[in-house]
Amino acid sequence: MTPLNKLIEFLRIPSISSDPTHAADVRRAAEWVAAELAVLPHVEVVEAPGRHPLVYAESLAAPGKPTLLLYGHYDVQPPDPLELWHSPPFEPVIKNDNIYARGACDDKGQTLILLSALRRLIERDGRLPCNIKVLIEGEEESGGEHIEAYVPTHTEKLAADAAVICDTEMFAPGLPALCVGLRGIVYGEIHVQGPAQDLHSGVYGGVAPNPMMAMAEIFTALKNRDGLITIPGFYDAVRPPSPEETRAWSSLPFDYEHYRKTEVGSSELTGEPGLSVFDRTWARPTFEVHGIRGGFIGEGAKTVIPAVAVAKVSFRLVPDQDPATIVDQIKAAVLAATPKGITAEFKLLHAAPASSVDPSHPLIAKAATALTQTFGRETVYIRSGGSIPIVGLFQQALGIPSILMGFGLPDDGLHSPNEKFHLPNFHKGIDTVETFLLSL
Amino acid sequence: MTPLNKLIEFLRIPSISSDPTHAADVRRAAEWVAAELAVLPHVEVVEAPGRHPLVYAESLAAPGKPTLLLYGHYDVQPPDPLELWHSPPFEPVIKNDNIYARGACDDKGQTLILLSALRRLIERDGRLPCNIKVLIEGEEESGGEHIEAYVPTHTEKLAADAAVICDTEMFAPGLPALCVGLRGIVYGEIHVQGPAQDLHSGVYGGVAPNPMMAMAEIFTALKNRDGLITIPGFYDAVRPPSPEETRAWSSLPFDYEHYRKTEVGSSELTGEPGLSVFDRTWARPTFEVHGIRGGFIGEGAKTVIPAVAVAKVSFRLVPDQDPATIVDQIKAAVLAATPKGITAEFKLLHAAPASSVDPSHPLIAKAATALTQTFGRETVYIRSGGSIPIVGLFQQALGIPSILMGFGLPDDGLHSPNEKFHLPNFHKGIDTVETFLLSL
Repeated sequence: MTPLNKLIEFLRIPSISSDPTHAADVRRAAEWVAAELAVLPHVEVVEAPGRHPLVYAESLAAPGKPTLLLYGHYDVQPPDPLELWHSPPFEPVIKNDNIYARGACDDKGQTLILLSALRRLIERDGRLPCNIKVLIEGEEESGGEHIEAYVPTHTEKLAADAAVICDTEMFAPGLPALCVGLRGIVYGEIHVQGPAQDLHSGVYGGVAPNPMMAMAEIFTALKNRDGLITIPGFYDAVRPPSPEETRAWSSLPFDYEHYRKTEVGSSELTGEPGLSVFDRTWARPTFEVHGIRGGFIGEGAKTVIPAVAVAKVSFRLVPDQDPATIVDQIKAAVLAATPKGITAEFKLLHAAPASSVDPSHPLIAKAATALTQTFGRETVYIRSGGSIPIVGLFQQALGIPSILMGFGLPDDGLHSPNEKFHLPNFHKGIDTVETFLLSL
Repeated sequence: MTPLNKLIEFLRIPSISSDPTHAADVRRAAEWVAAELAVLPHVEVVEAPGRHPLVYAESLAAPGKPTLLLYGHYDVQPPDPLELWHSPPFEPVIKNDNIYARGACDDKGQTLILLSALRRLIERDGRLPCNIKVLIEGEEESGGEHIEAYVPTHTEKLAADAAVICDTEMFAPGLPALCVGLRGIVYGEIHVQGPAQDLHSGVYGGVAPNPMMAMAEIFTALKNRDGLITIPGFYDAVRPPSPEETRAWSSLPFDYEHYRKTEVGSSELTGEPGLSVFDRTWARPTFEVHGIRGGFIGEGAKTVIPAVAVAKVSFRLVPDQDPATIVDQIKAAVLAATPKGITAEFKLLHAAPASSVDPSHPLIAKAATALTQTFGRETVYIRSGGSIPIVGLFQQALGIPSILMGFGLPDDGLHSPNEKFHLPNFHKGIDTVETFLLSL
């Protein structure tokens, strides 16, 4: 059975981890992965009550060689809205070198790159050229609680020199990329209390504190119109990208107008003046408001001064910003910005530091060389503005860097209808992983 | 049957105009009012399809005398939450000189003051001392569409020298008050559009315009932290209260700390510095935010930069501020405050000018004298921060001032559980109206 036939089989399993009615499918996908890993000397399906299983496998028969921890996930996002799919999401269709199905790119296709490379090496050479541990989860799209509890309590078992994660994108078609920086996050709520109860804005408008307005005053005290965050100390630890990074980013193929119009879809890009789009989305921290609860938002008119308002907000962090310090700074800034008659407080929901990998790390360098060999173009080092929690977890619990070797394309439609995976990338991905492992 | 017995009978009818299951009760209340008005030579129940009836009556047998248009409403608010009532809302209970029932004060008790005074005069004197028109509606608590359509199309029939409205409060127990000013209102929505679709705040945070943040920037551009509205031209037409009004207000019994703690329930009162609470709530315009729709407000964390946000906002207007001019100023100020990458627009939902009555108007003066005689204390002229649409309607369509002769008390619990009416005020109200009519 070819890797492509296997991919089709894998994609047919509707392993939607957030949907309890698909629990049996999720389990079936875990067992499918375990069977695929059966070429390795040790495979186990790790259970935990109420959780989807982890699949763990290892081959430690290469003394003196590095140990890599390969990560992927076998669960997928729900396929809704179904009516927008051109073919059923769990009946893979191949068209123009792309395979269309939910999970094609995120992350069954990319997980199978890792498994297929291992299988090919073992079937051909009878053994792996280095020590390999594999950890595939089934809750990446639904909270990841199982792996979050498992990694810190199995640090010896999972000990490795680096992790390899195939769950990201290339910067552009044909251009091999390694992601060496991810932003961290502080996510929380700003709770604002004004009057003791909702008030009539006619009778009390003019003397009663208004929590919605207070929220606006707090937001604008935290960030100015130029996009600069005005929280004291907030930028203290922020370093500019290295001259090498800046040089590399400026040579990336990037069409500003296309990005503005098609990706962001706005009349103008915003943010700190004098900085490039890469600086602003990869190397600078942010403050964003996601929504505000409270007051009246129904149809028609109601003249209420609400007693309370709650905003969902987040801050993206860059390397060297310490989440605990930042949280303290946010709390102090919210207090300082609180108008009279109002009490306001920042409540943390979760935080994770930024992660970065030294591009000169020998394993990263070898991964880059493998990518360059396979794609025939120099590998570029990029960053990502988002946060991948597993990278922080591996860094924190195991003390290892993650090699983010992604084979998705920007238009693969992750989490969207008609998700696809570019088949040449699937095959080149297997070649790259094979080349990489052989180079160790 | 005494007026009190009649009040008990009237309060037993659950005439909740917003609840279609009570349509028959609403009609029963209209018929009850019509029967009570049958002492007048002409009474009619005015029907309109899909609307609750108006009750109209007239007695025009006093040539050379002024004509008054008496207004009240026979419908009531829903009694919810029922569990907070100490006795059933439609089974009136008398305790310590108060009658407890839904509608006791708002507005059956006060409507019956008008009807009882008319009946007493006719039964005793055989006639009324002036010309009287009565218009009682049944939709005051549910939109008032019937009367809104009726008044402008029946201006000749309703022609009068002044309206008398018993649907407001006294400033304090025992202190007779006439309300001579009401704020107007401009109510609308601010629509903000940022990116073409919801974006991931990790990937695009730093370059994508955020409508929630834009809303905060617009709000804070419209009003500063001192409560001063910074829309160009907004205060141009605003006059300070007259020296007489200021003097009168400063002599009103008013406990600032009690008001702050018990009525507003906040640690500090807000608003423009250097102005009294009466200035700020009666004589100054406001800008208030009622709620913001858009983005993510559920449990947990979602990192979305929403494409759109919609805020509900209102501006209270004072006399001489022209709603159309103000709307133009708001629209221009919203545009001017809109940050880059964003489109924003103010959309008007409804507007009404402030209304004011000249305290030296002869009918107002006579009403004040009648109040003073009955209560044994000098009548005070006050304003109200809210808006009573019927006052504007009478002013606009009929060109007449409204005498706002209210007998409610600040703690009567309008629209709340355990609504009550102070019975001495009920009886003194009848005496006052009788004295007033006889003085014409």
